Amino acid sequence: MASSWKRQQVAIRRLLGGRRRRMARVRPGTAPGTLMPPEPEQRAPACLTVMQYGPADFFETEAKTVEECLDLLDRPGVTWINVDGLGQPEVVARLGERLGFHPLAVEDVFSVPQRPKVEAYADHYLVILRMLRLAPDIDEEQVSLFFGASYVVTVQERAGGDVFEGVRARIRAGRGRLRAAGPDYLAYSLIDSVVDGYFPVLESLGERLDRLEDECVTSSGGLLLAHIQTLRRDLLTMRRAIWPTREALVSLQREESALVTAETRVFLRDCYDHAVEAIDIVETDRETASSVMDIYLATQNQRLNEVMKVLTVIATLFIPLTFIASIYGMNFEYMPELKWRRGYAGTLGLMGLVAAGLIYYFKRRGWW
Amino acid sequence: MASSWKRQQVAIRRLLGGRRRRMARVRPGTAPGTLMPPEPEQRAPACLTVMQYGPADFFETEAKTVEECLDLLDRPGVTWINVDGLGQPEVVARLGERLGFHPLAVEDVFSVPQRPKVEAYADHYLVILRMLRLAPDIDEEQVSLFFGASYVVTVQERAGGDVFEGVRARIRAGRGRLRAAGPDYLAYSLIDSVVDGYFPVLESLGERLDRLEDECVTSSGGLLLAHIQTLRRDLLTMRRAIWPTREALVSLQREESALVTAETRVFLRDCYDHAVEAIDIVETDRETASSVMDIYLATQNQRLNEVMKVLTVIATLFIPLTFIASIYGMNFEYMPELKWRRGYAGTLGLMGLVAAGLIYYFKRRGWW
Amino acid sequence: MASSWKRQQVAIRRLLGGRRRRMARVRPGTAPGTLMPPEPEQRAPACLTVMQYGPADFFETEAKTVEECLDLLDRPGVTWINVDGLGQPEVVARLGERLGFHPLAVEDVFSVPQRPKVEAYADHYLVILRMLRLAPDIDEEQVSLFFGASYVVTVQERAGGDVFEGVRARIRAGRGRLRAAGPDYLAYSLIDSVVDGYFPVLESLGERLDRLEDECVTSSGGLLLAHIQTLRRDLLTMRRAIWPTREALVSLQREESALVTAETRVFLRDCYDHAVEAIDIVETDRETASSVMDIYLATQNQRLNEVMKVLTVIATLFIPLTFIASIYGMNFEYMPELKWRRGYAGTLGLMGLVAAGLIYYFKRRGWW
Amino acid sequence: MASSWKRQQVAIRRLLGGRRRRMARVRPGTAPGTLMPPEPEQRAPACLTVMQYGPADFFETEAKTVEECLDLLDRPGVTWINVDGLGQPEVVARLGERLGFHPLAVEDVFSVPQRPKVEAYADHYLVILRMLRLAPDIDEEQVSLFFGASYVVTVQERAGGDVFEGVRARIRAGRGRLRAAGPDYLAYSLIDSVVDGYFPVLESLGERLDRLEDECVTSSGGLLLAHIQTLRRDLLTMRRAIWPTREALVSLQREESALVTAETRVFLRDCYDHAVEAIDIVETDRETASSVMDIYLATQNQRLNEVMKVLTVIATLFIPLTFIASIYGMNFEYMPELKWRRGYAGTLGLMGLVAAGLIYYFKRRGWW
Amino acid sequence: MASSWKRQQVAIRRLLGGRRRRMARVRPGTAPGTLMPPEPEQRAPACLTVMQYGPADFFETEAKTVEECLDLLDRPGVTWINVDGLGQPEVVARLGERLGFHPLAVEDVFSVPQRPKVEAYADHYLVILRMLRLAPDIDEEQVSLFFGASYVVTVQERAGGDVFEGVRARIRAGRGRLRAAGPDYLAYSLIDSVVDGYFPVLESLGERLDRLEDECVTSSGGLLLAHIQTLRRDLLTMRRAIWPTREALVSLQREESALVTAETRVFLRDCYDHAVEAIDIVETDRETASSVMDIYLATQNQRLNEVMKVLTVIATLFIPLTFIASIYGMNFEYMPELKWRRGYAGTLGLMGLVAAGLIYYFKRRGWW
Repeated sequence: MASSWKRQQVAIRRLLGGRRRRMARVRPGTAPGTLMPPEPEQRAPACLTVMQYGPADFFETEAKTVEECLDLLDRPGVTWINVDGLGQPEVVARLGERLGFHPLAVEDVFSVPQRPKVEAYADHYLVILRMLRLAPDIDEEQVSLFFGASYVVTVQERAGGDVFEGVRARIRAGRGRLRAAGPDYLAYSLIDSVVDGYFPVLESLGERLDRLEDECVTSSGGLLLAHIQTLRRDLLTMRRAIWPTREALVSLQREESALVTAETRVFLRDCYDHAVEAIDIVETDRETASSVMDIYLATQNQRLNEVMKVLTVIATLFIPLTFIASIYGMNFEYMPELKWRRGYAGTLGLMGLVAAGLIYYFKRRGWW
Repeated sequence: MASSWKRQQVAIRRLLGGRRRRMARVRPGTAPGTLMPPEPEQRAPACLTVMQYGPADFFETEAKTVEECLDLLDRPGVTWINVDGLGQPEVVARLGERLGFHPLAVEDVFSVPQRPKVEAYADHYLVILRMLRLAPDIDEEQVSLFFGASYVVTVQERAGGDVFEGVRARIRAGRGRLRAAGPDYLAYSLIDSVVDGYFPVLESLGERLDRLEDECVTSSGGLLLAHIQTLRRDLLTMRRAIWPTREALVSLQREESALVTAETRVFLRDCYDHAVEAIDIVETDRETASSVMDIYLATQNQRLNEVMKVLTVIATLFIPLTFIASIYGMNFEYMPELKWRRGYAGTLGLMGLVAAGLIYYFKRRGWW
Repeated sequence: MASSWKRQQVAIRRLLGGRRRRMARVRPGTAPGTLMPPEPEQRAPACLTVMQYGPADFFETEAKTVEECLDLLDRPGVTWINVDGLGQPEVVARLGERLGFHPLAVEDVFSVPQRPKVEAYADHYLVILRMLRLAPDIDEEQVSLFFGASYVVTVQERAGGDVFEGVRARIRAGRGRLRAAGPDYLAYSLIDSVVDGYFPVLESLGERLDRLEDECVTSSGGLLLAHIQTLRRDLLTMRRAIWPTREALVSLQREESALVTAETRVFLRDCYDHAVEAIDIVETDRETASSVMDIYLATQNQRLNEVMKVLTVIATLFIPLTFIASIYGMNFEYMPELKWRRGYAGTLGLMGLVAAGLIYYFKRRGWW
Repeated sequence: MASSWKRQQVAIRRLLGGRRRRMARVRPGTAPGTLMPPEPEQRAPACLTVMQYGPADFFETEAKTVEECLDLLDRPGVTWINVDGLGQPEVVARLGERLGFHPLAVEDVFSVPQRPKVEAYADHYLVILRMLRLAPDIDEEQVSLFFGASYVVTVQERAGGDVFEGVRARIRAGRGRLRAAGPDYLAYSLIDSVVDGYFPVLESLGERLDRLEDECVTSSGGLLLAHIQTLRRDLLTMRRAIWPTREALVSLQREESALVTAETRVFLRDCYDHAVEAIDIVETDRETASSVMDIYLATQNQRLNEVMKVLTVIATLFIPLTFIASIYGMNFEYMPELKWRRGYAGTLGLMGLVAAGLIYYFKRRGWW
Repeated sequence: MASSWKRQQVAIRRLLGGRRRRMARVRPGTAPGTLMPPEPEQRAPACLTVMQYGPADFFETEAKTVEECLDLLDRPGVTWINVDGLGQPEVVARLGERLGFHPLAVEDVFSVPQRPKVEAYADHYLVILRMLRLAPDIDEEQVSLFFGASYVVTVQERAGGDVFEGVRARIRAGRGRLRAAGPDYLAYSLIDSVVDGYFPVLESLGERLDRLEDECVTSSGGLLLAHIQTLRRDLLTMRRAIWPTREALVSLQREESALVTAETRVFLRDCYDHAVEAIDIVETDRETASSVMDIYLATQNQRLNEVMKVLTVIATLFIPLTFIASIYGMNFEYMPELKWRRGYAGTLGLMGLVAAGLIYYFKRRGWW
């Protein structure tokens, strides 16, 4: 019993100990637009991939240097530059110089985590999103997306997988609307991939919630509490990712700008609907999680009641009986009952009567 | 006692185990407007029924193929095509082609469950609703409703019953406003049927709530908790169905479009009032459910108090008495009291005094 | 003890069992504007009373038939027709035909309970209110009020008392503004009577709340819980009546219509202020009710603590002493202490020491 | 112990029993603008004081009759008439006649308590405020303030102290802006005094809250609960006073009227800031009060745990030992151990082993 | 055990006893704009530092008297006067006279704490902020910031450190945009420093929260409660600082004034984003803190369950056994079992059977 207790404590600690990174490093008083040197664990060099396409042709390459990308930007068609890893701020800074990004926009890319948002500048947009994937735990990554008249630049926090493979496949295949449309449609497709990527994560959270709902009336472990707590924390993470995304999509859809065509706006409305759907699920799950907690507490309470009832019934039954027995266990010289022939049998009978009376009382109270 | 415990656990598990389907399948990165092949359990072929009517005449048929329906669309009057079952996306796709539905609209029909909403397109509307019926458990089904200048198309998730029989009867009977009015009035009638259909479900939830309210101060079972939890879940389902429906009705009523006549708007306002009424009931029920939970917990608490009071009174009464008896049960050779003539009677008297004192104390505290 | 328990259970059931009627009967799919035949308990025939007045003259009658009323409508002055009882829908339908009521408006009058609201039609208004009175329990009744250019029609759910006697007295007396003003001012006076009628009910709820607040720290009965629950339910009923009334008054005041004069608007603003005052009281009472519940729970908790402390002190004091006594109650042949001259006194002394030590410990912990 | 319990109950009842007056008397159906005769406890005659001033001169008097005041109104300069006590409605009615107050405005003055508000009429404003002072308990009084082109009329609920002494001193001293400005600035000064008067009350509530926060982890009395409850009630009173005051200040500041100069608006903005500050404090205190309650409950819970742990350790330790002793207290003839030489010592040793084992177990669980 | 209890109580008291100052001293009725003499602990003389700069040159001095500063204001370039300490209101009053500050603005500077806000006057702005630093506890200080066409005046509550060192370094270094821009950009830089200064504080709160989250399932001390309470209080302090700051930034950004250039507005938007980020973190932390409290309570509950289960198992097991033993400890003369050869062994066997039965029962209930 005691050792399982210890083991449980260890399991709980491990569950709760997986800390999420909490906030962007900010050094008060530094000039706005200052790019801080990356933290040690983020110093992997940036990895650049470029896709360039038009209705008819398509070209894909992995760029060695940022100059290589810049050359490609002069060619006609839509150019999508994807930067994996925040280890080389100078790469994005160089792109920003060429494409005229606002210094504050470039700073935002590197201050991680940033609240999802859309920033409109004169000739480009910055969209900051939070990409969530199951890999197999929830993997959170910031994606920054610039788009202008002829290009899309995406900056991901880390190499190693994203939710954009479907979009890449569609560009390569050349079917559908994507190759014929402009960079705003590509930007929409990427945003849509990020938003649609929330659903598998929500599904896995939903399954965890279902399991907890099943267990909350039967299990009694502190492990359940730790599981509820981690689930709540994950739902909070989802919430913090999706609510601002929804706001960002509203503002992107409403912004009157030549950079986003009316056609793409219809698609953005659809994407907005998906975000609202995701919010709906998160809020419902949060409510369910808190009612699972309630049920768990009520169950614990009820168990305590059960346990106490058993204790009370047993103790209340035997304590008076033991008292009677202890009276006749006294060693007084003059105890007439002790000499009676039926003393023993009578005492046992008395005990039986007391017991029967108590049991009757318990039955009436519904405790038996 | 123990076996009833086991049986209860099984009942609770069964109650909580009835999982609702949670969210639409989404594959991140697929092109918008892509129709996914139906899931195995949804592969029943679509069943098409057509009603066509004008002020004077009326025609009703069960169409074998979608082409049959398309032919009917050329005839004058209002045409209502109802599709039961999501097993053949190509049927709706074909209708959509003919009637000019937006690909995103068609996709929405097949991504189940969708949040209730109204989408306005150039020459048609898409209304997505959640139909709830008692059959005899709560049966949830998505209904998509397209309407344009001369037609209404409804797509239901499954065959096997809907809330539209009253409308069909009214078309057949030819009384009232329905036959003389346009497709917007038919659309209103169908939406109104869905909204009115919430009330019998709410009534049955209300009855369950009344029962729980009755039982919460007298029952002590974990079953009650499970019942509260399932009721809460059903109320949450209702809430997720009705709130967005209300929003959809607002936007439908406000939209300035030639497709909805001023006369129908008055009726939509009435339908909106019903939706608000339903929301009112759901919110009141949710509040009552949570106060039932509070009362249940307080009752449990109070019972624990009762049980502990009985235990304390009995134990506190007999433990000192037993102690006195055990003193005179000791076997010391030199215990003068044991030899006293009135030792035994005196000891019993002492016990009586102690008991009386304790009972007096309990009475003053109000514990007896 | 057990029988008082039973009696309490019965009292609680009676308190909680007084079910409020929950929602309007709706049969999904029926045509809008359909008047359902009244339910058996509502089949009392409608009772019609008419008051007609101008600045100078005044006339009052109890009409036998609806036709009698209709004739009166042609005469000059303001006509107030009051219908008591929903048993004869045809009466209101006939009035509606003559005065041009919208079919949906007439339907609303008979679908009880309806959410309080104002509906503006071309030449008349429909105001639906909930009339609450103490008689001596809270009596809830729906009042529908139509007013047009020269008439006011009120429809009450039941005969047997309303809050309009003051208005009738003012018409009869002919003092003040009422006789000189139009039907909008009469409508205002009736609405104001309904809103002012909430205050005596709120006052009685406030007194119940005060009593509960007094008892929550001293009583320990489950009856208190049931009283809190019924009070909460009554407050919820008040809330559902008053909030929409407030909204209705806002819209009535803002509506730009020739039917409501600027002068009457000033009075409606005052009435609106009263409704806000009532809401304020309801919300404060709800908050107080929930804090009474908190206090009650905390008190219960604290009592459990008291009870457990007594149990612990007694048990912890006597269990070790009894153990010592039981040692010397053993029957071993070789127990040297039993033979000692001071064995008994020494044992009693040891017991005294142990008891003193424990009491000292309890004192330090503050348990004694 | 029991008598301190009784004394505590009495103290709690006294604390909670101080009922606040709850709502204005309303008699449904009376004509709007009707002045009810004052309640017995409010029948003290009204006490009239007048201050009249201009930039250069200043005049102050205590008027015997209302006619005396009316005469003063014809003289140039700003006239401030202050009425203390609601015992003579005819006094205010007479002033209202002369100055053209709306009947509803006069009615509001006498229906106490009224929600703080601003009512704009053609040529005057009515401002209703709640004046709170420490005297030394919280003293709540309604202040009604009319102001027009050349006068300010204030009506206080009771004689005996107000927060306007500072303003009177400033008028008498003749320094600063007050003597040179119009009645709107005087009205602002009075409103500002009322709002600033909230802060000393809030400070005293804050001190009570601090004391409760100190005690909640150490005290165990039901008195604490009663103190929290009364504090919450006082905070609710503050809240009901300040929130509507804030709204009133917004509307007064925004109203476009010649009666309030642009200069005074700047000062009203400052006064509005103070009201917001007060709301901030109230809301923070409410939140803190509810977390004090949480902490108190958690502390009680934890104490119960402590107590139960002690009980469990003692009972669990001695019950098995007593059982062993009671075995060898049995009187069977054939109990070989009783005859063993080392029987007694061995039994004591066994008891020691059992005790050691249990203590080891308790230590591992962290219960010792 | 008892002494560690005492020590814990002391630690808790110390934790909770660190009172924050609660509100600004207000003396109701004093004239607006009145500067109160500083409180004793704030009477340190004000310390004035001046920085003056243009694109090309830069000058820095510590002024002895306020006149010295006033002379500098006539020179070209941007002048930043920083006043440390509220001990000499006359210094700021003198500056205000020269620069035309509104008297209410000057009063606000000295009424501490003030809600963060922006006040726009004809030719200057007043921004009031709350500066939070770790030093090493959370140090809260009010910063008032005036800026006009050519100057910035900051007033800090106390000397001894601020978050502006980075800005001073940037002015001295002369790099970046700061030296070339106007006073609005300097004001932005200072506001940005204050907002960015919240993040290190939030980080430290986050670490405390992480530690509490770790401990809440394993610790059982009342110390944890006190830590949660102080953390909540600190989060409330942060919240009261940041929410109004966000509002202030919105109004500063929207205000149409020549004093803030379009370029600076873009930077203010960025600063606003940071404030929203900080709010996000505070709200998430508050939610996490309250769920840590929940988990702690649930853990305590569960422990009580564990403890009670052990007590119940032990007591329920041994009480019946002790009863059996006590029966055969009775001294009746006619107890046939006592004479039986196998009486003793049989009794032990019976006890074994009873024990086995109970253990089997406990196992089935899952209590063992």
